[in-house]
Amino acid sequence: MDQAKRSTAGSTSASPLVLLSQGSFAVGGSIVRTDGDYTTGLPPAAGQTLHGDHAYAFYQIPIEPRPYPLVFVHGNSQSARTWETTPDGREGFQNLFLRRGFSVYCVDQPRRGKSGQSTVPFELTATPSDQFWFNTLRLGVWPDFFPGVQFCTSAECLEQFLRQMTPTTGPFDLAVAADGISAVADKVGPCVLVTHSQGGGIGWSTVLRTENVRGIVCYEPGSNFPFPEGEAPSEMPSAGGPLAAMEVPLDEFLKFTRIPIVIFFGDFIPSEPVENHGQDQWRVRAAMARLWADAVNRRGGHVEIVDLPSIGVRGNTHFPFSDLNNVEIADLMSAFLSRNGLD
Amino acid sequence: MDQAKRSTAGSTSASPLVLLSQGSFAVGGSIVRTDGDYTTGLPPAAGQTLHGDHAYAFYQIPIEPRPYPLVFVHGNSQSARTWETTPDGREGFQNLFLRRGFSVYCVDQPRRGKSGQSTVPFELTATPSDQFWFNTLRLGVWPDFFPGVQFCTSAECLEQFLRQMTPTTGPFDLAVAADGISAVADKVGPCVLVTHSQGGGIGWSTVLRTENVRGIVCYEPGSNFPFPEGEAPSEMPSAGGPLAAMEVPLDEFLKFTRIPIVIFFGDFIPSEPVENHGQDQWRVRAAMARLWADAVNRRGGHVEIVDLPSIGVRGNTHFPFSDLNNVEIADLMSAFLSRNGLD
Repeated sequence: MDQAKRSTAGSTSASPLVLLSQGSFAVGGSIVRTDGDYTTGLPPAAGQTLHGDHAYAFYQIPIEPRPYPLVFVHGNSQSARTWETTPDGREGFQNLFLRRGFSVYCVDQPRRGKSGQSTVPFELTATPSDQFWFNTLRLGVWPDFFPGVQFCTSAECLEQFLRQMTPTTGPFDLAVAADGISAVADKVGPCVLVTHSQGGGIGWSTVLRTENVRGIVCYEPGSNFPFPEGEAPSEMPSAGGPLAAMEVPLDEFLKFTRIPIVIFFGDFIPSEPVENHGQDQWRVRAAMARLWADAVNRRGGHVEIVDLPSIGVRGNTHFPFSDLNNVEIADLMSAFLSRNGLD
Repeated sequence: MDQAKRSTAGSTSASPLVLLSQGSFAVGGSIVRTDGDYTTGLPPAAGQTLHGDHAYAFYQIPIEPRPYPLVFVHGNSQSARTWETTPDGREGFQNLFLRRGFSVYCVDQPRRGKSGQSTVPFELTATPSDQFWFNTLRLGVWPDFFPGVQFCTSAECLEQFLRQMTPTTGPFDLAVAADGISAVADKVGPCVLVTHSQGGGIGWSTVLRTENVRGIVCYEPGSNFPFPEGEAPSEMPSAGGPLAAMEVPLDEFLKFTRIPIVIFFGDFIPSEPVENHGQDQWRVRAAMARLWADAVNRRGGHVEIVDLPSIGVRGNTHFPFSDLNNVEIADLMSAFLSRNGLD
């Protein structure tokens, strides 16, 4: 495709963003019903339905888009906000990849954000947990930021970061989440998933539900690694709790061998057990990601694991795509897409 | 300002959208704390904070924007999704007014959507209530659409409409909501609020908190009309429950006399009591809106009430801005902004 014709390709944050179109939709989900007949009186539950558990996507299409749209799948306690403006006010991956000529679909998982309607009741506890998250998301060990962390350490940046969290509004259910994301992929057509954390496991399960995932860029997958039946590693203990693998039939597992996948991990992940739960849980997650990549690659797959510090990219938190060096992180993603014919 | 220079002004849905910038932020809100010292172990509540009750805004700035940004404030059980793609897949007010050269700020109220973190615990019941909402939002009297309704009556359109609902994730608190919207206005600068339903009352309360609201376009305000102390009308009974007014000190009330305000009501609102709660509650809300407009205008204010059917615009639901005739509805809003020097 003619690069020069793409008005947004290679442009900087100072250039206008030129969109062919933008909009949003809900897709997937289920409907629950109560018995009885509905009357036009005040709200009895009788005889009514509830639409819930769908995914919501806000899409933006640049002029002459590249062939594979990017479908962004956020992690736990987040929404598509993850991919927007960074905590320090710069452009996130939504804008950066629009400027690089990709159509972007920023999804709120089922039971989160603008697709918050769950078909299952749920109690929101509003439990103070900022300090827990500060450690878990590897900004540092509360109250100290890690030395050299790629995060603007002002109080204002931290506040923006903490306020981008939004609660899960129903029980987390991997099948419901993956059904929602696969419904997005079915609607969008052949696409690349860009997943983060809890969204990583949703991405793997999405591959088992739709033919439309042509590649995955995954940042720090947290859980739900699907191994072939009989090959799941033992539960891995960590100071952040144990990490269990899941199993799928071998013929399902082989689907992972047919698409290119890259998994990025940031900095401050120890190789030996440490007391700080925030770091230690990423130790076992990175370890299980390596076992999973080996399992896929042994059968002819193409999973790359990029340990960012080992290639000289230092200081990244659990959110490399919104860290201070996110343009460099985007360049690494662009290179993967290019190497694999996905751009 | 030179109209010709505005690349988006007057353009159609087939033209590209040209943005100077887009992004998002959280603003306002509060912080709650638990006693004790935080340790780096597993998530105890002790010694932690929680950031919540902020508003979230996604903004888009066109090339050479008009002077007053539009701040969109959605209603009950909705999010900023309200202003995006219509249920039948056309452009909503977000796009239409971008194309008319306005900066648009699409806000999720505190405790909703991408600003879902409440500082107060809350139970989500997932109660089936689609039929209740079908009537309340005046699509018809379930299961029948109103004859001539400006709503695409296919099953797919109704499904998209029902799936744009998203739960309130904390108790509805007018002060919390208005604090959030006024924090947006304080950050944005002089602006025009575009409010809907429950958001109408939030808009009135926002005027009492910030100097930056220079005009209000309100679609079908639902509640929380602020009268001068001693002048509130009696509670108005309806088949949808009673509607109470609120009171504010007179010097506060006078703030409403200093800005232009237009209130639009759609079709199928009866003038005499009817049994259907969905229509009857709008009868009393429209009646109270007229009393409120009179109270403001008696003191020199400029509140217009537009009963759409009375000017020949028929068939509108509770969501005129996303109904089939929403371009005509947008033209009426543009005319108001123009008449009042707000464009």
